[in-house]
Amino acid sequence: MPPKTADYDALRRDLIALLGEKGVVDDSETLSPFLKDQRGRYEGQTPFMIRPANTEEVSRAVALCAEAGVPLVPQGGNTGLVAGAVPFPEDGAVLINLGRMNRVRNLDPTDYSITVEAGCILQSVQQAAEAVDRLFPLSLGAEGSCQIGGNLSTNAGGIHVLRYGNARDLVLGLEVVLPDGRVWDGLTALRKDNTGYDLKHLFIGGEGTLGIITAATLKLFPRPRETAVAFIAVAGPAAAVDLLARAREASGDRVAAFELIPRIGLDFALRHVNGIEDPLAETHDWYVLTELASGQADGSLRPVLEDLLASACEDGLVIDAALAANERQAAAFWHIREGLVEGQKFEGGSIKHDVSVPVSKVPSFLDQALTLVKEMVPGIRPVPFGHLGDGNIHFNLSQPEDADREAYLGRWDEVNHAVHSLVVDLGGSISAEHGIGFMKVAENTRFKAPLEIEMMQRVKAALDPKNLMNPGKVVPR
Amino acid sequence: MPPKTADYDALRRDLIALLGEKGVVDDSETLSPFLKDQRGRYEGQTPFMIRPANTEEVSRAVALCAEAGVPLVPQGGNTGLVAGAVPFPEDGAVLINLGRMNRVRNLDPTDYSITVEAGCILQSVQQAAEAVDRLFPLSLGAEGSCQIGGNLSTNAGGIHVLRYGNARDLVLGLEVVLPDGRVWDGLTALRKDNTGYDLKHLFIGGEGTLGIITAATLKLFPRPRETAVAFIAVAGPAAAVDLLARAREASGDRVAAFELIPRIGLDFALRHVNGIEDPLAETHDWYVLTELASGQADGSLRPVLEDLLASACEDGLVIDAALAANERQAAAFWHIREGLVEGQKFEGGSIKHDVSVPVSKVPSFLDQALTLVKEMVPGIRPVPFGHLGDGNIHFNLSQPEDADREAYLGRWDEVNHAVHSLVVDLGGSISAEHGIGFMKVAENTRFKAPLEIEMMQRVKAALDPKNLMNPGKVVPR
Repeated sequence: MPPKTADYDALRRDLIALLGEKGVVDDSETLSPFLKDQRGRYEGQTPFMIRPANTEEVSRAVALCAEAGVPLVPQGGNTGLVAGAVPFPEDGAVLINLGRMNRVRNLDPTDYSITVEAGCILQSVQQAAEAVDRLFPLSLGAEGSCQIGGNLSTNAGGIHVLRYGNARDLVLGLEVVLPDGRVWDGLTALRKDNTGYDLKHLFIGGEGTLGIITAATLKLFPRPRETAVAFIAVAGPAAAVDLLARAREASGDRVAAFELIPRIGLDFALRHVNGIEDPLAETHDWYVLTELASGQADGSLRPVLEDLLASACEDGLVIDAALAANERQAAAFWHIREGLVEGQKFEGGSIKHDVSVPVSKVPSFLDQALTLVKEMVPGIRPVPFGHLGDGNIHFNLSQPEDADREAYLGRWDEVNHAVHSLVVDLGGSISAEHGIGFMKVAENTRFKAPLEIEMMQRVKAALDPKNLMNPGKVVPR
Repeated sequence: MPPKTADYDALRRDLIALLGEKGVVDDSETLSPFLKDQRGRYEGQTPFMIRPANTEEVSRAVALCAEAGVPLVPQGGNTGLVAGAVPFPEDGAVLINLGRMNRVRNLDPTDYSITVEAGCILQSVQQAAEAVDRLFPLSLGAEGSCQIGGNLSTNAGGIHVLRYGNARDLVLGLEVVLPDGRVWDGLTALRKDNTGYDLKHLFIGGEGTLGIITAATLKLFPRPRETAVAFIAVAGPAAAVDLLARAREASGDRVAAFELIPRIGLDFALRHVNGIEDPLAETHDWYVLTELASGQADGSLRPVLEDLLASACEDGLVIDAALAANERQAAAFWHIREGLVEGQKFEGGSIKHDVSVPVSKVPSFLDQALTLVKEMVPGIRPVPFGHLGDGNIHFNLSQPEDADREAYLGRWDEVNHAVHSLVVDLGGSISAEHGIGFMKVAENTRFKAPLEIEMMQRVKAALDPKNLMNPGKVVPR
């Protein structure tokens, strides 16, 4: 809770002296969008937001807040989906936005590494790599506005995890400002360094509760020279899982993406988003959008995909398929995948889940979960889609067409809890990608082993003994 | 130091009651090999060694020791190279050997995962994967005797890091017995799970100082269907680095291994190891042993390698090369790489380093380091070899032929420190693969930022407040 004795006026003066007038924002109209989460479910409060320009300013600002006993909430692009960057009224926390820190500090194509500041927009990092004929493979829907610091703090996933791993797998080193303001310089481009505990992994996925990531050295990869994309009508989720195994084998493990799409998702996209076309002649219940990628431009991928689909068709896994003939068509297929996310916004309230189960359990999960939610809410319109290749389904449920939106959304926790129980029984996770933030703290405590919660609390206490860094997020108070 | 009030007799009785007579070893002859490190430079002491059969026994044994205030030193295959598993006299620690815990608990080819107990020999894990047409890619010299628990505790590297990453990158989940005996069940086969801090990364590379890894769920991969191996005489280290970049590009990033070998290493192997032949007609100063691997058996790799070598030859990077015509020849090339390690044992004292620098700095490092050591010890015979693809050079220095072995080895710390200073100046690591153990604790403190040491000490204090788990290793007391 806000320390009663905290002198916010003195702190504000000190921060203005440090950052300049434009570095401290307290105008409520300007602040408003920074205080709301991406889905509009939470609205926070802060005495002021600060916008440091570099690591030194972050360090000194954090030190000032720490001395004043005032907590901080770090924020990047504010595209998070679990209210992890929302400052809650009871904390009296200063919001610290990293958006001004957007420099690329170093780019080394020979060593396949790039060092960027936390406020770099993800798309900019992708483009900086592309400019030197390298690939930074992290790719997700929000990439035009999310910032790399936030991506690392939440261990973002995205569409390429199957091939390149999560954000965690793409980091060589970090620079972090600790809760007392001291700067840990853990930046390194080394691939092999066993000189003590690998501390960066606490801050990656730490959601800003242990320190503020200010810069990172990231891994780059050779660019794919050839891709083959297909939009495939599959017999069902089990067929999709089989098809994935065949695709990995047939392509020499060159499957870069493998996304599940239900018919209703395509319908929503067709209905509400411009420029969407159904790639196939007839209507089908389940689709897979897959992309193979190769480091060699030898024309070998397309025949691989064609043969794969032909034999899968003979075996009844695949009903129909469209192979992208060129990049424009490939982009059109991906537009459907983005469109189904957009389209849901126009179909009333949506109760959402971000769950994962072992890949082989996805068909069973969908079967049981769909039955469950249809019983709980007759007329519910499920839109389960996502990263089938990692077992990560965004199990989103649009309201019955005639339901009252608020009443429907009022059942969010009840439905979540039922679905989560099923997920955990199947050995899955209640938050595959999005993190815990504020939104899932209580739910996580219901499912996670108490010992593990205790271990997290010990680590938190060790690095942030005064609980000044994003209090109330991730780890129960 | 050994708690003066510790009642070892009572503890021993309790442990025999728990583990049975054969679970507790105090016969000095039997104990002897377990008390020495792999290189014979350290010899430890323990009141007794315990050998639990399963996680439950580990848990209870650790709890008993914790209650008695007696520290523990965990040990796997005892192949470590920094005395990390040697129990030192002053600690009065019980040695806990995991070798009996060698079950494969689960194998899931569809999900590409395997769950094994800590005492499984690495080669057994590789073979279990092979039996279901999968690959577990961790591969190092000691694989016939090292145990997976130790590999994970030390974040082992090996020859395939370039392609598959370190041990850290191969772990999906861990089961760990904490310093108070409680069991953290973090086993999971999920690829995506953002439900709190990623605690496994503290134990991986933690070298047994935060808890004892008892089981792990590991990632499997599709097996390569085709490999192409070549033994190449290169113009020098700089040419080797260029060749690596070309190889990654030309092969679509399918370089699985890229090892640097100096002439003297080949000579040592020829001189001392059976069945070694020089693959090339003439003598050269520097060699690269490389392996490309593809998931597809389409005959495409060999032409890629041939073309690569042909153009590298035209450009003066490559002087001569032998492509393995079949698996037997490929194995013979790899035998040279193993032979040069063996061969050094017969050439007197060897002062060793396990360093890494950014790949692009390897030529500069070798240049400067070789000059440096030749000045320090006239007649020294350097044998720098290793994982060039990761910037990790085992910079081993055989004594001058006429030198006194003990006098030479007496200069170990002096030479190490000079080389390490150079490495750190180049942005490198003083322990690329082997870890800190006991051997490099003091040296690490000289080079690592005090803040980072402090952070490690805080984490250690948080999870092992009584300093019972492998005291004196990794983190300065």
